[in-house]
Amino acid sequence: MKAVVYKEPFEVAVEEVEDPKIQDPTDVVIRVTSTAICGSDLHMYEGRTGAEPGIVFGHENMGVVEDVGPGVATLRPGDRISLPFNVACGFCKNCENNKTGFCLTVNEGFAGGAYGYVSMGPYMGGQAEYLRVPFADFNALLLPPGDEHEADFAMLADIFPTGYHGAAMADVQPGETVAVYGAGPVGLMAAYSSIIRGASRVFVVDRVPNRLALAEKIGAIPVNFDEVNAPEHIVDQTDGEGTDKGIDAVGYQATVSGGDEEQPAIVLNNLVYTVRPTGRIGTVGLYVPSDPGAPSDEAKEGRLLFEVGTFFEKGLSMGTGQANVKSYNRSLRDLIVAGRAEPSFVVSKELPLAEAPDAYARFDKREEGYSKVILHPEAA
Amino acid sequence: MKAVVYKEPFEVAVEEVEDPKIQDPTDVVIRVTSTAICGSDLHMYEGRTGAEPGIVFGHENMGVVEDVGPGVATLRPGDRISLPFNVACGFCKNCENNKTGFCLTVNEGFAGGAYGYVSMGPYMGGQAEYLRVPFADFNALLLPPGDEHEADFAMLADIFPTGYHGAAMADVQPGETVAVYGAGPVGLMAAYSSIIRGASRVFVVDRVPNRLALAEKIGAIPVNFDEVNAPEHIVDQTDGEGTDKGIDAVGYQATVSGGDEEQPAIVLNNLVYTVRPTGRIGTVGLYVPSDPGAPSDEAKEGRLLFEVGTFFEKGLSMGTGQANVKSYNRSLRDLIVAGRAEPSFVVSKELPLAEAPDAYARFDKREEGYSKVILHPEAA
Amino acid sequence: MKAVVYKEPFEVAVEEVEDPKIQDPTDVVIRVTSTAICGSDLHMYEGRTGAEPGIVFGHENMGVVEDVGPGVATLRPGDRISLPFNVACGFCKNCENNKTGFCLTVNEGFAGGAYGYVSMGPYMGGQAEYLRVPFADFNALLLPPGDEHEADFAMLADIFPTGYHGAAMADVQPGETVAVYGAGPVGLMAAYSSIIRGASRVFVVDRVPNRLALAEKIGAIPVNFDEVNAPEHIVDQTDGEGTDKGIDAVGYQATVSGGDEEQPAIVLNNLVYTVRPTGRIGTVGLYVPSDPGAPSDEAKEGRLLFEVGTFFEKGLSMGTGQANVKSYNRSLRDLIVAGRAEPSFVVSKELPLAEAPDAYARFDKREEGYSKVILHPEAA
Amino acid sequence: MKAVVYKEPFEVAVEEVEDPKIQDPTDVVIRVTSTAICGSDLHMYEGRTGAEPGIVFGHENMGVVEDVGPGVATLRPGDRISLPFNVACGFCKNCENNKTGFCLTVNEGFAGGAYGYVSMGPYMGGQAEYLRVPFADFNALLLPPGDEHEADFAMLADIFPTGYHGAAMADVQPGETVAVYGAGPVGLMAAYSSIIRGASRVFVVDRVPNRLALAEKIGAIPVNFDEVNAPEHIVDQTDGEGTDKGIDAVGYQATVSGGDEEQPAIVLNNLVYTVRPTGRIGTVGLYVPSDPGAPSDEAKEGRLLFEVGTFFEKGLSMGTGQANVKSYNRSLRDLIVAGRAEPSFVVSKELPLAEAPDAYARFDKREEGYSKVILHPEAA
Repeated sequence: MKAVVYKEPFEVAVEEVEDPKIQDPTDVVIRVTSTAICGSDLHMYEGRTGAEPGIVFGHENMGVVEDVGPGVATLRPGDRISLPFNVACGFCKNCENNKTGFCLTVNEGFAGGAYGYVSMGPYMGGQAEYLRVPFADFNALLLPPGDEHEADFAMLADIFPTGYHGAAMADVQPGETVAVYGAGPVGLMAAYSSIIRGASRVFVVDRVPNRLALAEKIGAIPVNFDEVNAPEHIVDQTDGEGTDKGIDAVGYQATVSGGDEEQPAIVLNNLVYTVRPTGRIGTVGLYVPSDPGAPSDEAKEGRLLFEVGTFFEKGLSMGTGQANVKSYNRSLRDLIVAGRAEPSFVVSKELPLAEAPDAYARFDKREEGYSKVILHPEAA
Repeated sequence: MKAVVYKEPFEVAVEEVEDPKIQDPTDVVIRVTSTAICGSDLHMYEGRTGAEPGIVFGHENMGVVEDVGPGVATLRPGDRISLPFNVACGFCKNCENNKTGFCLTVNEGFAGGAYGYVSMGPYMGGQAEYLRVPFADFNALLLPPGDEHEADFAMLADIFPTGYHGAAMADVQPGETVAVYGAGPVGLMAAYSSIIRGASRVFVVDRVPNRLALAEKIGAIPVNFDEVNAPEHIVDQTDGEGTDKGIDAVGYQATVSGGDEEQPAIVLNNLVYTVRPTGRIGTVGLYVPSDPGAPSDEAKEGRLLFEVGTFFEKGLSMGTGQANVKSYNRSLRDLIVAGRAEPSFVVSKELPLAEAPDAYARFDKREEGYSKVILHPEAA
Repeated sequence: MKAVVYKEPFEVAVEEVEDPKIQDPTDVVIRVTSTAICGSDLHMYEGRTGAEPGIVFGHENMGVVEDVGPGVATLRPGDRISLPFNVACGFCKNCENNKTGFCLTVNEGFAGGAYGYVSMGPYMGGQAEYLRVPFADFNALLLPPGDEHEADFAMLADIFPTGYHGAAMADVQPGETVAVYGAGPVGLMAAYSSIIRGASRVFVVDRVPNRLALAEKIGAIPVNFDEVNAPEHIVDQTDGEGTDKGIDAVGYQATVSGGDEEQPAIVLNNLVYTVRPTGRIGTVGLYVPSDPGAPSDEAKEGRLLFEVGTFFEKGLSMGTGQANVKSYNRSLRDLIVAGRAEPSFVVSKELPLAEAPDAYARFDKREEGYSKVILHPEAA
Repeated sequence: MKAVVYKEPFEVAVEEVEDPKIQDPTDVVIRVTSTAICGSDLHMYEGRTGAEPGIVFGHENMGVVEDVGPGVATLRPGDRISLPFNVACGFCKNCENNKTGFCLTVNEGFAGGAYGYVSMGPYMGGQAEYLRVPFADFNALLLPPGDEHEADFAMLADIFPTGYHGAAMADVQPGETVAVYGAGPVGLMAAYSSIIRGASRVFVVDRVPNRLALAEKIGAIPVNFDEVNAPEHIVDQTDGEGTDKGIDAVGYQATVSGGDEEQPAIVLNNLVYTVRPTGRIGTVGLYVPSDPGAPSDEAKEGRLLFEVGTFFEKGLSMGTGQANVKSYNRSLRDLIVAGRAEPSFVVSKELPLAEAPDAYARFDKREEGYSKVILHPEAA
């Protein structure tokens, strides 16, 4: 089959690779109908991880069941399913507690697995015509047959649940004010999720005008951090009090206002200032224990200068970590089906698989129109 | 009346001060029967805060109602009551949400007030014969009449609820394993509270033998960090997995193993290592935004090198801040009355008020027998 | 001042009564700007309660502070405030746990008090020019000055929080399906609240066409129980599964399909059928321990034939009771201010106080346009 | 193999039946080491269900893995495991939400499955030498190897989690008072679980002296309902207020004080009286939608005269249904291993499988010493 293969830094190719097949009785193989490129794929693309050439990318996958292992109880060929980016077993202590992002079974020696990602286990990515899905009864989310809502459902594998995870960890409640730092696809999904959860006002901080325009379109309040001091501006807008909740959708590659200097803790520290005493922060922007490209020795090892004193004095709390997609994707699917959520508003372009190399290159350069690309492998 | 007055660094005196009286209709004045010295009093005692000479210390207070303002609905002279160290109004947004440690009314310009503490509002301390209690219907916790359980009830003003707050923020559940760093009075109360909440195994980390002996006495597992690498030892004891939850009962004056060097973030970072992926940390040890005596420029302003990368990768969450005593003191009182909790096991000595200066000096030198002192003013 | 006084069954009059004044230091007196007539006022109006002639009605009140007791800490003359229908103290065990509908202080011998309602304590109603507000710092919810959103804010005293309470007790979560029985003002507010909380589909059951039309207008799915078997219809619409959650906004005066026969448990039992296994029911429709007009001896004492067997087999749970308005009114106010909620869509008419007798009579006859009336006393 | 086979009302026999074997790739077969007789087995034994002759009883099972299907990921021959009485798939909407007692996969047309029980699906019981376990990775709880704690672990399949479920549904919190109706094995486990969760005082209501003696032994307060009016007595003991929480561990076969007359709703209604306003009730005692032996036509169909009026007026809430064992058994196992729980205190006798017929007969007659029997099949 054809698949997007990592060749070397800044180069992927669409090549023939071996077809995936049923390996364990609880597997299925799907024909991929949509698979999106994720900002986190760029970490590998840019050579800033230990990803080896040959890896097939793609962890935002959906498609139609082709083959079914003999130990699969409920899935049948022809079923249209969405796959969480996390690969999970369904029965370990973490999965049992709905922490499927930290499965103890699927990736020996580490809590958590994923498709097509370095260090996340031996699972081929889905930017390909076919994909093997382990523990399929557990990992598959059944979708309505047909092709309706395809782009909306494509967001269920990662960014919609990931944005929602930010809002859930911040425990956004009806009537509350929320500050979301970052208006990339995940930040927009976090703002959108906060609104779905009933927030009264959602501030979204970024510097890219068309991202901020999308934020405004969904009813959020855009804040351009190149134009105003974002934390101060938001605190002012909340009568000097600060927002009830905050979401970090940026992570360690955060840059300062007015320039491109990276300050890995700047968003976290801005949130400590922005959120009111007793508030809560949900962090879905990525932080890593090892970042060779970081601006300081400590940051290279994931230690950042965090405003612990103020964090404590204000009695703040914080939840972090990658999304446990299974905790949310069923509910979010139902909102899409009922017409109450259309997360595809973040999708900038849909392309055939063959155009992946070009799409990666343009996305990496932040070209407009490539901020969120869905690939359609279109296998027969 | 007589009261413990701060004179200058390392000196307090028992002096005559003006009797407190009803100032607002919702006040009561109590005759103090027990008032404990707290580790946080030493911050002022040692001159490491902005506390001015003349301040009366004491935020762990209980006693008997003497005078009742005309706007008090339920308290009557003779009622025996415990007072949370937090002064709170009962009706602001934070109080309404049970965040009484962050009251927006009682201490203008700051979220939270307390008795006898620098920057915590104009409330005289209770290491004195009498004490004025504002918003008395709200702040008072009624106790059974008489003098039974006096030392247990004295722990309800601060350290028992504070320790419990750590366990509550960590969301300690029946069957879970917990690591508590710090076996001072608050750490012991955190361990005790974890056991009350049904924890299966509670590790308590300290270096002082008689503190560790107390931990063992209540059923916890002592870990001496001068003898073993505490995080590694605990992870080993949990089959390499780490504990479900962690509690920081040390704060920013943490010291390294085998010496007295302060490393303000060492306990937080040890907890990041000690707690298993998806776990939760409750931080009740104090961190401050301004610490002139800190070992680095950043730490002087409350910015510490925190293991954000690993914290995120493990999907950990953390709650912080001073205890909202009112959220817990009613339940903890009922456990004492029912004979299921005896927090007075941490009390090392009970003394008349007149011995306060000596007690402070010895406590400050960490003399054995002065780790938790209750003063009895014994006003007529 | 002028007030709506109960004279005898089916008769109220607007009469001069003594002006309320500050009785306790923690009181305020307000000039009432809006006060709504509630369906529960009709119970008294129709003489089906022990209400004595002379009682002043009105528990859905808002207005502007005129007089302030000396023990009031934060309110000032001119402040515009909303009053929860529950009178509560703010410091008893129930208030402390946000159960302000069951205050143990304000109504001796009973858990819970209210304005202008039989057996709910000595609190005059607000269908009058002025109103005394006890424990005013606690009971008042501050509103933006001016007269904007007056009709929306008038819904904050009772029916918006009461409807929301149904959704909260049912724990309605984003993506869920909900069945609301009853499309009177409270049922509509329950449906509206479910949508605010992110429900995917909300079914609303009633027989009155213009109520059902309002339900449809806010995005709910109307179900006319005179036209279809409502429980079966809803179960069919959810693929035979039943809704995730259910809300009873009818209570004990429920009638059967196609007639006026009262069957006090019919809504509860329909919900047992309608809600899927493991679901949850929030009951805000009134049930009473004593109903002399009930159709059976058992029902006269509040004992109803409830489908306990099926309720248990399906593992259902249920929350009940009058709303703790203070738990919700702050958040709901913020949604109104932010333009995200407009509960006044249920208001059918606004009238001067003088027209109260006519309005009661027409409301009691269910005349169109009188389903939710706001009175404006317009004192001063 | 040998198994306990139901022959006719009041008769079981130990007979040869066909050995179970791997049917699906995700199955294991265990050698049963302990299997307990449950009160609910008596419903079938007495012929009060539709159970057909030939059914093998036994849903409280544990043992050692013998055979492992090819789709099982983690279990290996020799593993010692406990099996929840519920059979569950692990991936349906209910299992995913930890409602494993209401699995939608394992028992077509019904929410929930179990071993060896009429209408609970095609799963042979474990009162036998061997047992087939479906979806084994999910259903098995791994135990420490060896035979330590065998009787304690035998309680993990049903009654310890079931009692705990009552306490969990009542949301028993540290410091609270609890009333448990019923001191059979499940009621004792509910009281024991309430204590583990930190309750201050737990009242246990029964009439059988040795049950009440066991309740007292674990620190609960026994109340003999043949000697006192239980609800009034408990309300008196809580200063006229009522308990914070209540647990029904009796169910529909409840009898009145001083006699054997069945009143199916008496325990529920006593709880409505016993529990304080705003309280919560957890119901684990069985109620059924069809009971041909019930004392009234309505009760035969599961409709009981429930005190809805008072339930609502007091703002009570209630959770019901069979336990989702998987939600609790891991934590409870850890408490046993840590020495903090010894649920085997309820075990009255341990017998070889061959004595099952005699044990059933004596248990059915409520002979002392047969209240909780563990059978040991002792297959080679």
